[in-house]
Amino acid sequence: MPLLVMKFGGTSVADLDRIANAAEKVKREVERGYDVIVIVSAMSGKTNELVGWVEATSALYDAREYDAVVASGENVTAGLMALRLQEMGIPARSWQGWQVPINTTSAHGAARFVSIPREHLDAKFAEGFKVAVVAGFQGISAEGRITTLGRGGSDTTAVAFAAAFAAERCDIYTDVDGVYTTDPRICGKARKLDRIAFEEMLELASLGAKVLQTRSVELAMRYKVKLRVLSSFEDTDENSGTLVCDEEDIMESKAVSGVAYSRDEAKITLVTVEDRPGIAAAIFGPLAEAGVNVDMIVQNISEKNYEGHTVAVTDMTFSCPTNQVARAKKAMEDAREKGTIVYDDLVVDTDVAKVSVVGIGMRSQSGVAARMFAALAAENINIKVIATSEIKVSVLIDRKYMELAVQALHDAFELEKA
Amino acid sequence: MPLLVMKFGGTSVADLDRIANAAEKVKREVERGYDVIVIVSAMSGKTNELVGWVEATSALYDAREYDAVVASGENVTAGLMALRLQEMGIPARSWQGWQVPINTTSAHGAARFVSIPREHLDAKFAEGFKVAVVAGFQGISAEGRITTLGRGGSDTTAVAFAAAFAAERCDIYTDVDGVYTTDPRICGKARKLDRIAFEEMLELASLGAKVLQTRSVELAMRYKVKLRVLSSFEDTDENSGTLVCDEEDIMESKAVSGVAYSRDEAKITLVTVEDRPGIAAAIFGPLAEAGVNVDMIVQNISEKNYEGHTVAVTDMTFSCPTNQVARAKKAMEDAREKGTIVYDDLVVDTDVAKVSVVGIGMRSQSGVAARMFAALAAENINIKVIATSEIKVSVLIDRKYMELAVQALHDAFELEKA
Repeated sequence: MPLLVMKFGGTSVADLDRIANAAEKVKREVERGYDVIVIVSAMSGKTNELVGWVEATSALYDAREYDAVVASGENVTAGLMALRLQEMGIPARSWQGWQVPINTTSAHGAARFVSIPREHLDAKFAEGFKVAVVAGFQGISAEGRITTLGRGGSDTTAVAFAAAFAAERCDIYTDVDGVYTTDPRICGKARKLDRIAFEEMLELASLGAKVLQTRSVELAMRYKVKLRVLSSFEDTDENSGTLVCDEEDIMESKAVSGVAYSRDEAKITLVTVEDRPGIAAAIFGPLAEAGVNVDMIVQNISEKNYEGHTVAVTDMTFSCPTNQVARAKKAMEDAREKGTIVYDDLVVDTDVAKVSVVGIGMRSQSGVAARMFAALAAENINIKVIATSEIKVSVLIDRKYMELAVQALHDAFELEKA
Repeated sequence: MPLLVMKFGGTSVADLDRIANAAEKVKREVERGYDVIVIVSAMSGKTNELVGWVEATSALYDAREYDAVVASGENVTAGLMALRLQEMGIPARSWQGWQVPINTTSAHGAARFVSIPREHLDAKFAEGFKVAVVAGFQGISAEGRITTLGRGGSDTTAVAFAAAFAAERCDIYTDVDGVYTTDPRICGKARKLDRIAFEEMLELASLGAKVLQTRSVELAMRYKVKLRVLSSFEDTDENSGTLVCDEEDIMESKAVSGVAYSRDEAKITLVTVEDRPGIAAAIFGPLAEAGVNVDMIVQNISEKNYEGHTVAVTDMTFSCPTNQVARAKKAMEDAREKGTIVYDDLVVDTDVAKVSVVGIGMRSQSGVAARMFAALAAENINIKVIATSEIKVSVLIDRKYMELAVQALHDAFELEKA
């Protein structure tokens, strides 16, 4: 029997009516002849409520207890979904992570899959069960404790099950109807993509497009799981939504597939750093140790007359998430204290945004960066930092220009055209 | 190390402040030198919310899914309580039913204990853990599914752990400060009892006093667990609350220890039933099959001239919970249809209440029933049905006289005096 994995996020199971609606979608696939594994999130708001209780109880909480508390939200939805399906005459039952079992590492709050044995679920399908409803986002450690995968982990659970059970496809139902060329709230011309390559989706996901969790896309790419993003709130068929797939499954690629943005980025500049071999390591080593996720890095070397001597100095600029600025600053000041780095000043600019163009077509088509810079220049938008990878170009700009930049780039690369 | 079991009901863990308050009580016992097993209910209101969702999803729900959903409430409280204790510097962790494991039968929604192996918890106490927080009301079946014990099951969990771990005492923290001679809301003179015998508590619990669940008292009696009921909301010490204990541990007993009442009782009379051997079986067999919990039974035999013949006839009166009246009526009508019983009329009276006096002293002191009837007669309260056991006398009266009857009996047996 062909098998599908269907995943419903928090807004798709927010109340009993929505659970019923999601169950209708499952029923349709069963009628098409599929066995189905349904992965569910907690009802929207529930996980935040539980996390709030944990944090209010214990600031430096025991992550094992956090996981035991927070995983309960998905258990409720899984049971209710199984009941709804049974009520519709479909043989179904729920599974909690430890019942499957979904074996994970013991890294509580950010656990990774170790194995998902198929025996139990396969036996149930063989008995005539059509649907296994599995609580997403959770698993069990070798010590027998409940683990969670971190926020958004239900997407990752869905992909892992699709890989383990060789599913024909993994359908991620959410509150948008697919992946767009950019955020439609910012750019009215944004267009839904029928297909997007894993690599592009990865860049978009990590650049701030919140449709799919990065880890789930990585996992899907590694195990060649066909991933589809589609809407819980519309009628859908085999061609709905956006298919995230291998590069080879996309006929022809434009240079740029989408424009992503992120407001959650800060720029930090170390002014007049003494330039010497090993200085980059001296700066970014302590930042990594402090858990700062450095994103873009720019270094400008110049010479400076310093107490009569000419020395090579540099301004070192990097970006990191806004909520890590305090940690980054402390790491730098500690390093200066210890004398491992020397700088005149540390300047923080949180009033910036990152805008990126992404496309696998960049690999074969040149001139993308030039076209991007020209489009921004035409709008008088000053570029503060540039970073590139094989399939993306990112710039840091003043935050107030962010929407304008996204719109200008969407026009410049003619993304409204299919 | 001596061990205590402490159980906190829904109102005692209704929010984070109350969980913190309960944790303080646990800490005090740890400081007194005890290892502690804490049994927690769901935050008050949570179980009702979950049950509501299940019932709204599926009227004839799969009890296995019901259990999986409903048990999640206790898991949340267990984790939060463990976190709170850790925050106070006490080595603690939470356990869900399947982790202990609490092995039960597969009777979902009304499971019974099979075994509670001590290994896991004993190992943790040996490691230096001082508190094991266990989710009440739940267990795991031989099939690996989550089970629940039925409403109020957390009391039973607490007693079962006290028995399994040979606890010095099982303290049930609740929103009242002990067991009273009668309901203080009805009778201002009601007095808290320092001690009460298991048998008395059983009669009081099953007669409508809602302090302790009947099954937990039965279990405590069988395993000689010292059970104490006390308040979460007051300062308490070793002498607080009410100790439920063996008859032998109570120095001297009055004839009557308490007055119980129940509004939830209906009276059904089958008028002019033909009296013959086997008629009682013909009536109460079908009622039992229909799941009707018959409580009191009264039969009056008389003779009647029936078409020229003298035949023995009887009025058969019984009581059952109000919400089972429809079922009882149908069972009787079906039996009449089939011809297994003959009666002229079936009269239902739901406007009744049951009032009972309970006391182990009755065994050795006579005249309790006479004193009870005299007290009711003095208030002009008519008795409709009488039933007695070794340690109680119950009467069915008009509901409007219930409060008056309770007060009159409390006075007649001088229960306000210690």
